[in-house]
Amino acid sequence: MGKYEALNEKSAVLYVRSRPELQEIFRSGETVLAREIGDGNINMIYEVYSQAEPERSLLIKQALPTIRLTGWPLTLDRMRIEARYYAVAGQYVPRLLPKIYVYDPDMALIVMENLNRHLIMRKGLIQRRRYPRFAEDMGHFLAQVLYHTSDLHLDGEAKKALVKEFINPELCKITENLVFTEPYIEHENNHWNERITPQVRALRADQALKHQVRALKEDFFSKAQALIHGDLHTGSVMLNESDTRIIDPEFAFFGPAGFDIGAVIGNLLLSYASHEGHTPDVEARQDYQAYLLDMVVDMWENFAWEFANLWAAEADETMPPSYRRAYLRKLLQDTAGFAGAKMMRRIIGLAHVIDLESIEDEEGKARAMSLGLRIGQRLVLERESIADARDLVYIAATSRPLYPFRYMA
Amino acid sequence: MGKYEALNEKSAVLYVRSRPELQEIFRSGETVLAREIGDGNINMIYEVYSQAEPERSLLIKQALPTIRLTGWPLTLDRMRIEARYYAVAGQYVPRLLPKIYVYDPDMALIVMENLNRHLIMRKGLIQRRRYPRFAEDMGHFLAQVLYHTSDLHLDGEAKKALVKEFINPELCKITENLVFTEPYIEHENNHWNERITPQVRALRADQALKHQVRALKEDFFSKAQALIHGDLHTGSVMLNESDTRIIDPEFAFFGPAGFDIGAVIGNLLLSYASHEGHTPDVEARQDYQAYLLDMVVDMWENFAWEFANLWAAEADETMPPSYRRAYLRKLLQDTAGFAGAKMMRRIIGLAHVIDLESIEDEEGKARAMSLGLRIGQRLVLERESIADARDLVYIAATSRPLYPFRYMA
Repeated sequence: MGKYEALNEKSAVLYVRSRPELQEIFRSGETVLAREIGDGNINMIYEVYSQAEPERSLLIKQALPTIRLTGWPLTLDRMRIEARYYAVAGQYVPRLLPKIYVYDPDMALIVMENLNRHLIMRKGLIQRRRYPRFAEDMGHFLAQVLYHTSDLHLDGEAKKALVKEFINPELCKITENLVFTEPYIEHENNHWNERITPQVRALRADQALKHQVRALKEDFFSKAQALIHGDLHTGSVMLNESDTRIIDPEFAFFGPAGFDIGAVIGNLLLSYASHEGHTPDVEARQDYQAYLLDMVVDMWENFAWEFANLWAAEADETMPPSYRRAYLRKLLQDTAGFAGAKMMRRIIGLAHVIDLESIEDEEGKARAMSLGLRIGQRLVLERESIADARDLVYIAATSRPLYPFRYMA
Repeated sequence: MGKYEALNEKSAVLYVRSRPELQEIFRSGETVLAREIGDGNINMIYEVYSQAEPERSLLIKQALPTIRLTGWPLTLDRMRIEARYYAVAGQYVPRLLPKIYVYDPDMALIVMENLNRHLIMRKGLIQRRRYPRFAEDMGHFLAQVLYHTSDLHLDGEAKKALVKEFINPELCKITENLVFTEPYIEHENNHWNERITPQVRALRADQALKHQVRALKEDFFSKAQALIHGDLHTGSVMLNESDTRIIDPEFAFFGPAGFDIGAVIGNLLLSYASHEGHTPDVEARQDYQAYLLDMVVDMWENFAWEFANLWAAEADETMPPSYRRAYLRKLLQDTAGFAGAKMMRRIIGLAHVIDLESIEDEEGKARAMSLGLRIGQRLVLERESIADARDLVYIAATSRPLYPFRYMA
């Protein structure tokens, strides 16, 4: 190969046929087909499958030199980052990642396992599905990856070598703009449901909120605590009742650990808010919302228990037990802050979530968005009061939609 | 050239003669001599001078593949870091750095201005000299370099490119060990004046102190706030009454800004403590000690005023004024913590300071060391109570030596 070329459905098949690593998957005589199935905004995804047995298949994920949705240029280096994240995280949690067959730097692509028995988590949550493995699997994933890539475990020299490999300025820039900057200023990228405009105006005028969001942004810029996935929302989780996989780590870099945990929790709470509009039956709604809050608490507790145990197993004379407790409490507070910031930007920024956008009843949609915005705001403002995961979900449980605005203009 | 070769006094002259950049300094026919004058622990320093007019001279600083004092291996890459720091900081504060004539990566050396009208600050402070330019010059230096290399000024992409260039694992490791780890455990590198052993034992048993030192270490590891010099003690400042220069930035990397400011302040307070032993005349002692505390306050206030003004001049809608105040207060608290950690390690760790070691009276020396250790401990423990620079120096002003130990075993 040696040079980059964007694939199409024909050349994708030829590419797969040319790679020695993939000869075992397809027989030499059989017909192999490809179709582009990407529903993301950024990359091309080809499913390559046997015509005779379509279940026998794999995926090619190829980066284009521009973002698919907008046409803006974006570095092909993101596929190197994705491959390296799978390699580093794969040392600790191989069963929670897709199998990677090929990373081809020249073509900026990865050939990987086709997770065709798994559903994107965000879609399952809209259908009020339950995932009995999720809290444990995600807690385990976060504890293993975040602990083993932090200074608590790595030697300073090893960590700094990894920090250097994962310098990822262009993708970090997207997050900086979309999560921490644009939602709080007038910007052409922003849009929101016009029914909640009074609440958006009030949010923009909240100086205490802006102060706290700026502090979170500073941590996102400069707190190189651990290797984070960087985009760990419920669209980056594919799962079913018995298996969980984390995908799409192209935003990975060394950043604040709470950013990843907060992404998961913020998106579970966006689902929580969405059922305010999706699910008119009060009992069914409250039942599923309680399930989601329990999931948040379970996931954090699984995470924190495993993280603390990994830490305690490595002797360090300079580490008093009080420091471990303080570290985990601060991490939970960071988590709450990032969760809140991620909720707000999904309601008033550029990229929204189908959990909320797919609500059919317009009044219900406005109520759900208002509730999500309110929870996000409170998580950011009240994060320093949070001492355990129950405090965090209590903020969600005690928030109500401000819409319809009885007391606001 | 093309390959590395350790210089000697003869080849240093030949080297200077061979560099086109240096032809203007020495005439073609004249006799040029060199002598090794390094009194540091790590590198070789050659002074190269005209025999006829010895003032017409320059310095060669060459890294050896091992540390001069101990023989331990150490990366030659440190001379690249030093040259890059001079280049980056030189954009903002050229008059506070030595002139650099040559950086030769193959030879791991820098040819630079010979500051032969300047004295190492640490030596001047022992003599109770006064430096009317210092508080303003150092405040200006810190404000310019720390502000312009932080995320407050730099675009995320530009900052991350610099972070990558300044990844400096081997030299960071030295600091991690000597400042944050060894002083708080049993380690063969540690040594101290036996008279203060009871106080050292009490310090080692102070769990609240260990907790706070661990938090500072975490920031040193992972808070990539700005480009820091990394070793900014009073031995890295050469000055006279009218001119100030910062030297020896080979420890530079992106770390917590308070580490640099704290290094300056911690070393001024080590001098403060040393006069407890050096200066038996009470009035002369108190007079100079008050001068040093004023210098700390002046330097911080110059720094903070200029830093805040640079910041305010760059419009940013997402930045409420309350955030600026909180940022600077947190920076002062970090500064106090790092100042304290640096004081303690210079009394009970591997590398001590001549301010204290040169005290002739043995009782006075023990009192001065006891006072330095006490101030360091309190700065770390009480740092969150500090709201302005006067709070910081008040901790020094209200500390007394614990030695002789009336109430301790």
